Amino acid sequence: MTPTRVVAFGGGHGLSASLRALRHCVPELDLDITAVVTVGDDGGSSGRLRAERGGLPPGDLRQALVALAGDHPATRRSAALFQYRFTTAVPPAPTLAEPVPAARAGDSLAGHAVGNLLLHGLTELLGDPVAALDHAGAMLGAVGRVLPMSRQPVGIEARVRGADPAHPDEVSTVRGQHQVAVTPGTVESLRLNPPAPAACAEAVTAVRAADWLIFGPGSWYTSVLPHLLVPGLADAIVSSPARRLVTLNLVAEKETSGLSLPDHLDTLRRYLPELKVDRVLADSTAVGDPAAVERAAESLGARLVLAPVAVLDGTPRHDPAALGAALVPVLRADR
Amino acid sequence: MTPTRVVAFGGGHGLSASLRALRHCVPELDLDITAVVTVGDDGGSSGRLRAERGGLPPGDLRQALVALAGDHPATRRSAALFQYRFTTAVPPAPTLAEPVPAARAGDSLAGHAVGNLLLHGLTELLGDPVAALDHAGAMLGAVGRVLPMSRQPVGIEARVRGADPAHPDEVSTVRGQHQVAVTPGTVESLRLNPPAPAACAEAVTAVRAADWLIFGPGSWYTSVLPHLLVPGLADAIVSSPARRLVTLNLVAEKETSGLSLPDHLDTLRRYLPELKVDRVLADSTAVGDPAAVERAAESLGARLVLAPVAVLDGTPRHDPAALGAALVPVLRADR
Repeated sequence: MTPTRVVAFGGGHGLSASLRALRHCVPELDLDITAVVTVGDDGGSSGRLRAERGGLPPGDLRQALVALAGDHPATRRSAALFQYRFTTAVPPAPTLAEPVPAARAGDSLAGHAVGNLLLHGLTELLGDPVAALDHAGAMLGAVGRVLPMSRQPVGIEARVRGADPAHPDEVSTVRGQHQVAVTPGTVESLRLNPPAPAACAEAVTAVRAADWLIFGPGSWYTSVLPHLLVPGLADAIVSSPARRLVTLNLVAEKETSGLSLPDHLDTLRRYLPELKVDRVLADSTAVGDPAAVERAAESLGARLVLAPVAVLDGTPRHDPAALGAALVPVLRADR
Repeated sequence: MTPTRVVAFGGGHGLSASLRALRHCVPELDLDITAVVTVGDDGGSSGRLRAERGGLPPGDLRQALVALAGDHPATRRSAALFQYRFTTAVPPAPTLAEPVPAARAGDSLAGHAVGNLLLHGLTELLGDPVAALDHAGAMLGAVGRVLPMSRQPVGIEARVRGADPAHPDEVSTVRGQHQVAVTPGTVESLRLNPPAPAACAEAVTAVRAADWLIFGPGSWYTSVLPHLLVPGLADAIVSSPARRLVTLNLVAEKETSGLSLPDHLDTLRRYLPELKVDRVLADSTAVGDPAAVERAAESLGARLVLAPVAVLDGTPRHDPAALGAALVPVLRADR
């Protein structure tokens, strides 16, 4: 029997939750997992690497690789190394006889995750981010493939109403994934810069061959919707014979304050009007008004599936095991 | 049959040559290889890491790991990643919509080898350099173990006559491995700082259990002799039942200008008077006056073995295959 080919779209933590949930399905389903990752990050370690050396921001790619890392103790340790972030170093004891030259006394590594440096170095060495991701995946014994949505990094820009709280009705342009993610205003529209980046060819191939495409959870404007703004990827998503699942968030994040769950679904159609969806998965408790979500799902052609998928400690995070348990019957459904 | 346990001492390029030569012996000999590496480096990427973040200088440890990396294409690629050195980046094309803040526009990675960053991160993550080296070795499919001579970094200092060419008879202290390695004067004596660092316990255990201990080739003052100045290691070297082999250099380096090959052997006895040696291996051509080298070898208790071990292009480098071919009959000799 051929495996069920699943492509999961997203960015940071939400995509990790989705991938970890898919791994929980593996005992019951034979899955071939591909993650397609946004490349708009411009904050933190990724932003510094991107600004200083160019290339794709590695942080979200690294998170996806780690989410798929193998279970062997050695690969778990390598995954921990990928995630290890250099903190500001305690100055070393003066065991060196010679004084430390002042020019060296900075701490240029602080803030970088080792996996970001490793992915960036691999990309420079091999000359291609996909070759680098494939090799890094092999180093981690990854149970799936991680691909960027585009081989070129993108900027994320939004027209935002009330980005400056002192002028709540003024609409201005907010630039950069990080700034969009934390804006206190209301996002009115989203675009990429450059506006039509080339899709990663391997991602397009994976989408065309997929049985299921999974969108979300994740930061809607900065991790989920950007995929729909890459023309080659949007075409493949619309024309793929795959079924499509949207996993909704548990709470609105800062960038989506004021956006209800039905609104989340409506934005998908707004940015990709041809998009049809087969299933919408929401947490039974977080869903709020199920009838409204159901209507929004139906307008995309989807059936709403409710399941308890949040962690039980009250924080708004998906529980990978619970999400996996909810995904099994969805992904197993007859075509 | 139990393997022949070989411990090779050294630092940078010389130790790499020795380890690569040992790998060439493997088809004919069943070898268990341990590299014991100096930890005095204070230049380049290693020096910066050491000054900024403390811990062992990783460069020579990395070189030894790479010399032992497995032959599988994936581990060869990982080895290439370890060796990959960030050059000064070409400034990225301005695809980011937002301007790059000036504070980010430096290039803090330039000059670092990826493997150095990875080894440093692993050591911080795991809290121990030996655990880090063992994991890195596993990542590289290494066919042997790499250990530091000490878990604490050391300074290398030398009393040098004529360090300042303007005062050829003046004796001064030159501090730091890099400065000692390039001094134009004559090294009169060598010491570590701290003067008696604790030996790495795993290295001591390997020495005690070894069948052969191999010293050199390599920078004599900065890569070979430092091992003899670590009291715990010196004790183990002297009391080990292992046989001892010294592989001589092909030419004098800057730090050993004025030091003949017999002088190289004499320095071993000077810094570890109890040292007995079984074999001295020299290149048939580079040996110069074989009778003089033979006398110096005999004064350590050793028999001189001459073999063609240099590369054929005239550069003063050991050819790993030729050195390996010369080592096979030596290491196979009855005890």
